[in-house]
Amino acid sequence: MTKKNLPITDSNSLPAEPHGFPNSQKAYIQQDGLSVPVRRIELSGDNPPVDVYDTSGPVHSDYVKGLPRNRQPWIDERAKTDDGNVTQMHYARKGIITNEMKFVAIREGCEAEFVRSEIARGRAIIPSNINHPESEPMIIGRNFKVKINGNIGNSAVSSSIEEEVEKLRWATKWGSDTIMDLSTGDNIHETREWIIRNSPVPVGTVPIYQCLEKVNGDPEKLNIDLFLETLEEQAEQGVDYFTIHAGVLLRYIPHTANRVTGIVSRGGSIMAKWCLSHHKENFLYTEFERICELMKKYDVAFSLGDGLRPGSIADANDHAQFGELETLGELTKVAWEHDVQVMIEGPGHVPMNKIKENMDKQLELCHEAPFYTLGPLTTDIAPGYDHITSAIGAAMIGWYGTSMLCYVTPKEHLGLPNRQDVKDGVIAYKIAAHAADLAKGHAGAQVRDDALSKARFEFRWDDQFNLSLDPDTAREYHDETLPAPAAKGAHFCSMCGPKFCSMKITQDVRDYAEKHGLDSEEALNAGMTQKAAEFQDVKDIHLPQE
Amino acid sequence: MTKKNLPITDSNSLPAEPHGFPNSQKAYIQQDGLSVPVRRIELSGDNPPVDVYDTSGPVHSDYVKGLPRNRQPWIDERAKTDDGNVTQMHYARKGIITNEMKFVAIREGCEAEFVRSEIARGRAIIPSNINHPESEPMIIGRNFKVKINGNIGNSAVSSSIEEEVEKLRWATKWGSDTIMDLSTGDNIHETREWIIRNSPVPVGTVPIYQCLEKVNGDPEKLNIDLFLETLEEQAEQGVDYFTIHAGVLLRYIPHTANRVTGIVSRGGSIMAKWCLSHHKENFLYTEFERICELMKKYDVAFSLGDGLRPGSIADANDHAQFGELETLGELTKVAWEHDVQVMIEGPGHVPMNKIKENMDKQLELCHEAPFYTLGPLTTDIAPGYDHITSAIGAAMIGWYGTSMLCYVTPKEHLGLPNRQDVKDGVIAYKIAAHAADLAKGHAGAQVRDDALSKARFEFRWDDQFNLSLDPDTAREYHDETLPAPAAKGAHFCSMCGPKFCSMKITQDVRDYAEKHGLDSEEALNAGMTQKAAEFQDVKDIHLPQE
Repeated sequence: MTKKNLPITDSNSLPAEPHGFPNSQKAYIQQDGLSVPVRRIELSGDNPPVDVYDTSGPVHSDYVKGLPRNRQPWIDERAKTDDGNVTQMHYARKGIITNEMKFVAIREGCEAEFVRSEIARGRAIIPSNINHPESEPMIIGRNFKVKINGNIGNSAVSSSIEEEVEKLRWATKWGSDTIMDLSTGDNIHETREWIIRNSPVPVGTVPIYQCLEKVNGDPEKLNIDLFLETLEEQAEQGVDYFTIHAGVLLRYIPHTANRVTGIVSRGGSIMAKWCLSHHKENFLYTEFERICELMKKYDVAFSLGDGLRPGSIADANDHAQFGELETLGELTKVAWEHDVQVMIEGPGHVPMNKIKENMDKQLELCHEAPFYTLGPLTTDIAPGYDHITSAIGAAMIGWYGTSMLCYVTPKEHLGLPNRQDVKDGVIAYKIAAHAADLAKGHAGAQVRDDALSKARFEFRWDDQFNLSLDPDTAREYHDETLPAPAAKGAHFCSMCGPKFCSMKITQDVRDYAEKHGLDSEEALNAGMTQKAAEFQDVKDIHLPQE
Repeated sequence: MTKKNLPITDSNSLPAEPHGFPNSQKAYIQQDGLSVPVRRIELSGDNPPVDVYDTSGPVHSDYVKGLPRNRQPWIDERAKTDDGNVTQMHYARKGIITNEMKFVAIREGCEAEFVRSEIARGRAIIPSNINHPESEPMIIGRNFKVKINGNIGNSAVSSSIEEEVEKLRWATKWGSDTIMDLSTGDNIHETREWIIRNSPVPVGTVPIYQCLEKVNGDPEKLNIDLFLETLEEQAEQGVDYFTIHAGVLLRYIPHTANRVTGIVSRGGSIMAKWCLSHHKENFLYTEFERICELMKKYDVAFSLGDGLRPGSIADANDHAQFGELETLGELTKVAWEHDVQVMIEGPGHVPMNKIKENMDKQLELCHEAPFYTLGPLTTDIAPGYDHITSAIGAAMIGWYGTSMLCYVTPKEHLGLPNRQDVKDGVIAYKIAAHAADLAKGHAGAQVRDDALSKARFEFRWDDQFNLSLDPDTAREYHDETLPAPAAKGAHFCSMCGPKFCSMKITQDVRDYAEKHGLDSEEALNAGMTQKAAEFQDVKDIHLPQE
């Protein structure tokens, strides 16, 4: 790994950024010799603080220096007994619990041995390239918290390296668990270097994009040697997972010809063009084991790309899509023979009634390797709002068992996301992932909901804001109608005004109930009996029936 | 009904508003002597126009004059044989197909006899007060398009009458199928009069709010006479449905005492306070038949309120909630004995895994009366984004069978929605309702998705924008990155740039496939055989298996 290509700016740094949240501090859980980050939200009165999962990484402002390389000693230690395979799966299968697994166990609140066993059987992955020692280990698997990915990256049309690094830090502030660098323009190598050195979360890429740059955009000129060379370049830099479209087989391609939207995956369409041009099988498929050999030297995980995913409601769950999924399952087994970690990419555009079939088939065909889906979008009719159309599908498929949700921003289908779009996409997906955790009954997920709802009910406005996913926005919305600082202590809000406040009335009801002994059904029934005379005029049909 | 209380402004009108959509026109389907509105979106080239359901009502700018009273002749005609009950259910049960039913059948694309039979059995309602002749009939029932409601209304704290009428027109522009006037402040009667006279969609209210104004905010002073007097006042004005919290029974109230958020419904908490103060059963329950007698004189529909709905994830699906639901089912039967139309209100805050139980229980306990839910919100942790947390739950419960979804705006829990919030809420809910229609396989729902996706795939940018729920926003987002008018005809977009455009490559694939006869699997297999020699070096595991 090298920094020699880093462009040096005048200041050697990007502007310092207010990455903090109100009344929050970064805290570290010290356990097993490890320091595991959380964000601790302090509450008012006697209410205990609430710790939330924190993806924002160490505070720093020197982007050229990059983040501290905290994982380096662990990696170095293991290198002493290196047998040419450094994947977490390899260690797990040898019965070794790595520091990455211990770290993840503390972060998720489970046993390290459980983490090891999930990794060993392929049901979870810890993307952790040995050349990305800056990353804080995280796990992707359906028995853990649902994760989200944010895509960044410049294109030929717009955006600078500084902007991309800034977007990375911004995305992880709001909660992105991994990021993908989808750059396709100039300076693709340098952009990636900056991103990886400053990323506290795993970084994924789609290497075929850079390959295509190297052949001046002509897919027919692609070949396995160029591809492996590019993988090596990116693995050396520290990329943690590669999207590889090895399931786009020649025989599936004709099944896309009558689709409403054909092939919408960039990588998928590039490989389809290559296959048809040469009338040969996809070289990513035929040379898959050579790719595995490379991946295991760095512990780069596969994100097996769904190059034939549906791009519209009309094309969901068709033969091309599920044919490719079957092939991805076949390739999963090959990768596992090399102890290379694997996740499987999924759609796309799928109506709600067809979402569960995607999950069920993926579990069956891909042997429970983690599923990583893009949404899915549940309708095509709302460009400009696809963070919402897709948050619906994402929440559902997360509940059904998807391990990581790739965000969709409001600009999907329309343009490149700016800073606000990145934030909107991440927050919509934090909502989807958290809703899925709640629905799965994931341990501890409801603590934050309960704390926030209790604060809401007790009119602790600041606590309510501070516990929310976006405290500034919550506070700003409140202040639009009731800006006075005193209103933060008011026992009513602007929706109903003081007379109509249902929460205030409920409090009165509680007080009354307590005073009059109405705190149990028995007491109430006793009261009912005493007052029975008053009910004589009530018709039969209206009498209480239980 | 009277207009004497209408405040007269200088101009006698609100500012004319750009209620149009690009390349769209209001068209009327002429059938059975009726004129049924649609919005017709014209597309480029040979692509046929797409008609979409239109809630925006007749174009007008004189708010004092109000909308044309198109239903008046139908109502007058029926009055000739009036037997004291003018509800659509009453006519349906007598085997009469009203013009309202015919109108709805054309609007929904089904048989009028089917509409009649659904109304007769209580599985759908057409809210249509005889004193609101300005309304364009619409139907709420699970065998029809899923509908959405937008709440407007001023409070003691903020907003003016003009603003509320403007919000009404704004909400119906974006697709609100009904609106509820939740005003609680001064001028409550006048605000409502303005809203009804200018509303092309049914108007709902929660009459207990006005009752409470009449007793200066003291719930203990409420009584059935005051309530009936208020109902009559509002029914005379033309309110189409009343939310009435008749299921808040004394015996359920103690079950809310240990909730995280107690009673969060305003109406529910008002009635709870009344019950406890007097230690009597809810008068809305004991005097329910008197209410029915009034409702049937005007054809006001019941929206039986869920006063004990959960206000947090922790409180979902508890004893208080489902106890009340059972009582609402009991009251449904009473209302049906009077041929009064009924829908049932539902939650609230519910994690995804508990949503279906709400729908199943409602169908069973309430005899298939239409369900009308507020969201539900699938997590509590995102104030400021509750249009999203709730759109997830709304889409799901709509798919499961809910007939109408009450919108939630980004300001929920924080403040009163402004114009932008109303729009954001309506659009999030149009997405949820449409996603539900798609998932239910509702006839014709996918036409718009298919047309938009086809436009997207063919780079007909303007058609894509014009078919979307919010053309202006879609266009604006596109233009942020590629503002040049020429880009609207470009066969690529800013996300990938010209070299990487997957849709462009797919078109190439199609052209290639057509040229080389790869348009069927057979042809491809033939080609595979000829080229078999090239695959000799492929290992067994990589050979195609089908």
